[in-house]
Amino acid sequence: MTGLCYNHGMRIAEMGEFGLISKIAALIDEKGDRQSPAYRDLLLGIGDDAAAWKSPGGTELITTDILVEEVHFDFAYTGWKDLGWKSMAINISDINSMGGRPRYALVSLALPGRGEVSDVLDLYHGILEISNIYGVTVAGGNISASDKVVINITLTGLAEGNMMTRSSAQPGDLVAVFGFPGLAAAGRKALSQYLNLDADALQLFKNAHLRPAPDFNGGPLMARLGVKTAIDISDGLAADLTHICTASKVAAILHLNNLPVHPLLKKYFDRDSLKMSLAGGEDYELLFTAAPDIMNRVDAAFDPAPVIIGEITAGEPYALSLLDEGRNPVHIDFSGWDHYKYHD
Amino acid sequence: MTGLCYNHGMRIAEMGEFGLISKIAALIDEKGDRQSPAYRDLLLGIGDDAAAWKSPGGTELITTDILVEEVHFDFAYTGWKDLGWKSMAINISDINSMGGRPRYALVSLALPGRGEVSDVLDLYHGILEISNIYGVTVAGGNISASDKVVINITLTGLAEGNMMTRSSAQPGDLVAVFGFPGLAAAGRKALSQYLNLDADALQLFKNAHLRPAPDFNGGPLMARLGVKTAIDISDGLAADLTHICTASKVAAILHLNNLPVHPLLKKYFDRDSLKMSLAGGEDYELLFTAAPDIMNRVDAAFDPAPVIIGEITAGEPYALSLLDEGRNPVHIDFSGWDHYKYHD
Repeated sequence: MTGLCYNHGMRIAEMGEFGLISKIAALIDEKGDRQSPAYRDLLLGIGDDAAAWKSPGGTELITTDILVEEVHFDFAYTGWKDLGWKSMAINISDINSMGGRPRYALVSLALPGRGEVSDVLDLYHGILEISNIYGVTVAGGNISASDKVVINITLTGLAEGNMMTRSSAQPGDLVAVFGFPGLAAAGRKALSQYLNLDADALQLFKNAHLRPAPDFNGGPLMARLGVKTAIDISDGLAADLTHICTASKVAAILHLNNLPVHPLLKKYFDRDSLKMSLAGGEDYELLFTAAPDIMNRVDAAFDPAPVIIGEITAGEPYALSLLDEGRNPVHIDFSGWDHYKYHD
Repeated sequence: MTGLCYNHGMRIAEMGEFGLISKIAALIDEKGDRQSPAYRDLLLGIGDDAAAWKSPGGTELITTDILVEEVHFDFAYTGWKDLGWKSMAINISDINSMGGRPRYALVSLALPGRGEVSDVLDLYHGILEISNIYGVTVAGGNISASDKVVINITLTGLAEGNMMTRSSAQPGDLVAVFGFPGLAAAGRKALSQYLNLDADALQLFKNAHLRPAPDFNGGPLMARLGVKTAIDISDGLAADLTHICTASKVAAILHLNNLPVHPLLKKYFDRDSLKMSLAGGEDYELLFTAAPDIMNRVDAAFDPAPVIIGEITAGEPYALSLLDEGRNPVHIDFSGWDHYKYHD
């Protein structure tokens, strides 16, 4: 740096969420204590859907997610009860994607003092509704004042058998996905842009965005069937498959004609529907990879079965290739859900 | 409700933090699933410094705290590194006050995109500095955009022997406290009001507010010595002793002349010093109760030793009586740190 040059330093928005997380992970790697008993039991730190450590009862899991008003949700079309459901659902999804069962939740809230007590209780009704379905006990939390509503839920879980991670994909694995990615993005668009849709379509999209409800019990069964690699679709199918490739140091091919695009997504969003399926995010369906024999077992065990959409290759690490019906490369400009860079 | 009366419902600020927490606890009690395996293992839910459940390795603990810019900290006089230290310290304190050792932390951040990356790394330097001292492994987290900075840390812990709680105080117990409560409040006042103090006093007060560092290893030893009841002073000595009385369904007497008021607090805040000691909060020193024989053991084991300031009685539950030297009741108008009601 020369004398006259003022280096203001890089701003968070320039670096983006994923860049900042890498920086932080590197700092923890460099400066964190590696001698503590806790560190010795650690199985997975930063960089997966949940952290994990060995315990006498199995593999303990823990995950956390922060939701901020106007960034993650908009009260113009989000009710408090749905918000409670969703804020817990995204954490249950993280535990499920590791092959674990959720156990205890802590709910931290920052709330404006002018807010209504009944709204907070509605939030908890939504939290308890989904918690009761999946065996989650709300064990504590924290309340603070704030200008905007912030909800941070932390959820613990337990994987009794093998864990699924992002870092275990191998060349030769098939790539498969459950459900119809893109529906949550359609819901966000339909609600925020007040789109005029048929009631059935609106209901489907709205529910996908406001009240995600994939099979959150599927993870432990998949792990038992031998699946080692999974992630839940939160950033978008393409971004999340890239996370798997990055963590596993492999490449992947996606066959776009195999992508499960919901007919109503196709009907209402036409040429945008492919992009929404690939980059929409917040679907919380499981995306996973497995060797063909394991994939057959999963196919037989689940109804609806997952759809095979690609394969893992030994190609240039981190590279995701999109191929059309004729196996020709397709270029699509899309972004994952980076909270600093991506705005719908 | 009559026809013409519009009941707008109660606002959060009217009800206050503790009232809202009671409402939420009652709702969870009523609606929560009591059949799940997680619920069956639960030892402590909402209402203590941490939640706790049985596990094959001992008693698992978990706590969470949310810090919001302008509510809990002010960048006018708070550096990022100190903020990192403090945001982890308050959670380590909760685990310590239960008699546990901290293990794994998750750090959720909501940050404005215009913020500097180097500030976030400074925050982590502070987080890692205290984490390394107390054996904490930072195992994950979450980053989101936001207008104001919000830091939510969740910390797990393990109590290998007996746990200390708020709900086990018994008539005949003595009440004791470590350190000098009120110093953190003095720091907040000195910094926010730019008070002109001698360097030594300013340093003492500032550190107490910005970088709390009581003996965070003391809890497990106290539990081993037989102490069953403890809380860390976060809301203020009087409010926190009231939390013990409420949870234990007992009353307490505080002898004001025995209260450890730091000479520099007395010197600079004179007639306010007593109120600051009783209601300042954020000291994170341990306040505890124990039968006299256990108290003797603690006294012998710790240097500096705790100071006995009162006793637990069978009087009207929840009542805290303040007595002067002549054992006459003293009336002081003070409030604990209720984030909606209390402003310094």
